[in-house]
Amino acid sequence: MAENTAGLRGITAGETALCTVGQSGTGLTYRGYDIHDLAEHAEFEEVAYLLLYGRLPTRTQLEAYRERLQGMRELPQPLREVLERLPADAHPMDVMRTGCSVLGNLETEADFSEQDWHIDRMLATFPAMITYWYRYARDGERIDTRSSEPSIGGHFLSLLHGKPADPLHVKVMHASLILYAEHEFNASTFTARTCASTLSDIHSCITGAIGTLRGPLHGGANEAAMAMIEQWRTPDEAERELMGMFERKEKIMGFGHAIYRKQDPRNAIIKAWSRQLAEQVGDDHLYPVSERVEAVMDREKGLFPNADFFHASAYHFMGIPTPLFTPIFVISRLTGWAAHVKEQRAKNRIIRPSADYTGPELQPWVPIEERGE
Amino acid sequence: MAENTAGLRGITAGETALCTVGQSGTGLTYRGYDIHDLAEHAEFEEVAYLLLYGRLPTRTQLEAYRERLQGMRELPQPLREVLERLPADAHPMDVMRTGCSVLGNLETEADFSEQDWHIDRMLATFPAMITYWYRYARDGERIDTRSSEPSIGGHFLSLLHGKPADPLHVKVMHASLILYAEHEFNASTFTARTCASTLSDIHSCITGAIGTLRGPLHGGANEAAMAMIEQWRTPDEAERELMGMFERKEKIMGFGHAIYRKQDPRNAIIKAWSRQLAEQVGDDHLYPVSERVEAVMDREKGLFPNADFFHASAYHFMGIPTPLFTPIFVISRLTGWAAHVKEQRAKNRIIRPSADYTGPELQPWVPIEERGE
Repeated sequence: MAENTAGLRGITAGETALCTVGQSGTGLTYRGYDIHDLAEHAEFEEVAYLLLYGRLPTRTQLEAYRERLQGMRELPQPLREVLERLPADAHPMDVMRTGCSVLGNLETEADFSEQDWHIDRMLATFPAMITYWYRYARDGERIDTRSSEPSIGGHFLSLLHGKPADPLHVKVMHASLILYAEHEFNASTFTARTCASTLSDIHSCITGAIGTLRGPLHGGANEAAMAMIEQWRTPDEAERELMGMFERKEKIMGFGHAIYRKQDPRNAIIKAWSRQLAEQVGDDHLYPVSERVEAVMDREKGLFPNADFFHASAYHFMGIPTPLFTPIFVISRLTGWAAHVKEQRAKNRIIRPSADYTGPELQPWVPIEERGE
Repeated sequence: MAENTAGLRGITAGETALCTVGQSGTGLTYRGYDIHDLAEHAEFEEVAYLLLYGRLPTRTQLEAYRERLQGMRELPQPLREVLERLPADAHPMDVMRTGCSVLGNLETEADFSEQDWHIDRMLATFPAMITYWYRYARDGERIDTRSSEPSIGGHFLSLLHGKPADPLHVKVMHASLILYAEHEFNASTFTARTCASTLSDIHSCITGAIGTLRGPLHGGANEAAMAMIEQWRTPDEAERELMGMFERKEKIMGFGHAIYRKQDPRNAIIKAWSRQLAEQVGDDHLYPVSERVEAVMDREKGLFPNADFFHASAYHFMGIPTPLFTPIFVISRLTGWAAHVKEQRAKNRIIRPSADYTGPELQPWVPIEERGE
């Protein structure tokens, strides 16, 4: 196999009208809208609508959409009972993958004409799915999975903390969920499309995507960044430790990107929110440590922070436990995955590549008595 | 996008030493062994060992392997409780996908050094996973998921029917599970490899593959073939109805293949078993109907039966309900999927293709008040 086709890098595997990465000026667009505009002006539900239905909603459409989602938040009772049976030390991404799969048993997509209903239902229930399990496993509490928070991000925070979400935090969640919503043919999205290409149901597609996002080469970089920066109490300590990590050739998570070459357009946006949150909570070390890490990485390695790095401190300032960082990524990216499934279904060909065979030539059968150890 | 790269047809997406399809003489090899030799001489556990561990086992190795698998058949109690909560009318593939996902919560692969244990555990538990749910949902019975049947196929049949498996049926199950075990970079296997390429866990990879196999363009053709042939009581009726289906341009399931051009090497093997089973049960119409369908398809369309067509009657003669046909495919193909995951992990590059962008150019933000319907 030509080395450069490994991983299909640069190989076109289909068409999309959803997203450009590393083109069109500043780097990331959803349906032609620049990520800066979306993150600054839009709410997450607006972007979900844009990705899933092809255009920005009018005020009336957005309000109807938000209300529809709010009305779909209740978890089915058998799903709660399943979540209660998953261990307290389960991997939260295994919980999400399982919750989505169970939902597909209870509310099966019988026909593609139902796809939008099921997608909305997942958008509405995923925040409760992870927080119901988390609160039950940790505190033994069976939380009410409804809330009066109008937004998905606010809903997640209020279920997690058992109180109304702080208005600043709701804003940050909008921006964060927008930044993670879509990123072209990344591995988890490509899994969703491959699954969709056999004309399988929407829950199978999303379940497979969650499992793929779970891998440490894909999701989880913000959790790893958090584990790193929370060890350090001052910028100087961070710099000293970082230099040691360079010497030991350890990987620093949250920096560089497979496609972006000069900067990740999502970084400046979440960084600005992290700074505001730091001020709000009176942080005097995590944000300065993060900034120093950014400066040292630039100076020593010429590497820039990607979307994940300042997400770590931002989520932490909002009181989100580190193991729930990647499930938030799921809540957001669900919109991109589902939009890709819709696109694949609309113009489908089964995804079935070839392989270079590197195994033994045709060989004669050897009866079991004649086989050597 | 060039039309011929849609679906990645003919595009090399990686290397494999596991399988050739449509090469090397008669068409299908696993690690260099011809499918005819394997299906005639081997037991399924031997082929599983070959795929997963790279060589045919000695007698001692095979016996140890079978014993190991037999000792791992018990379902964890929380998994039973989850299966009891899935509806009686759930899609059996949704049950399999969920059972696999739940197992990953209860017994998480903490490190790739554990992969063989988890693969064996899935091989050992999948027959019980589907039959436990099926028998509970249908008969309200909580079956004992252990059995004294030494083989995986016999174990499945004995759990399903609540009695020791017929020796002829055990032989047919060996052949059937061998025929379905592996087929290079088909869509479900490619899903497993894409998931594995992010270094995700084995349960995520297999869960995603099950969801992909669920699609009607991939698994399920034998179920569709069964639904068709069981309507017809005589070969003449079959021929008449089939001609009507041609006129109405309806698709006939179980015929032709994306890669094989002249014949599917698996067909003659399962057809011979179906004939033996027909004699055993004293069938006087389903097998003759199947043979007539084969002859008419050849005469009228020049199409040959693929692996699925005679599987329909064969499974039916063994008393297997049609909705469990595709779950048997899962029990078999698990070996191929898992072997591909091991291969992907051993020489990994994240699978991340490109897309041709067909969406709108960069466009300015439109405030919500200024948007038209």
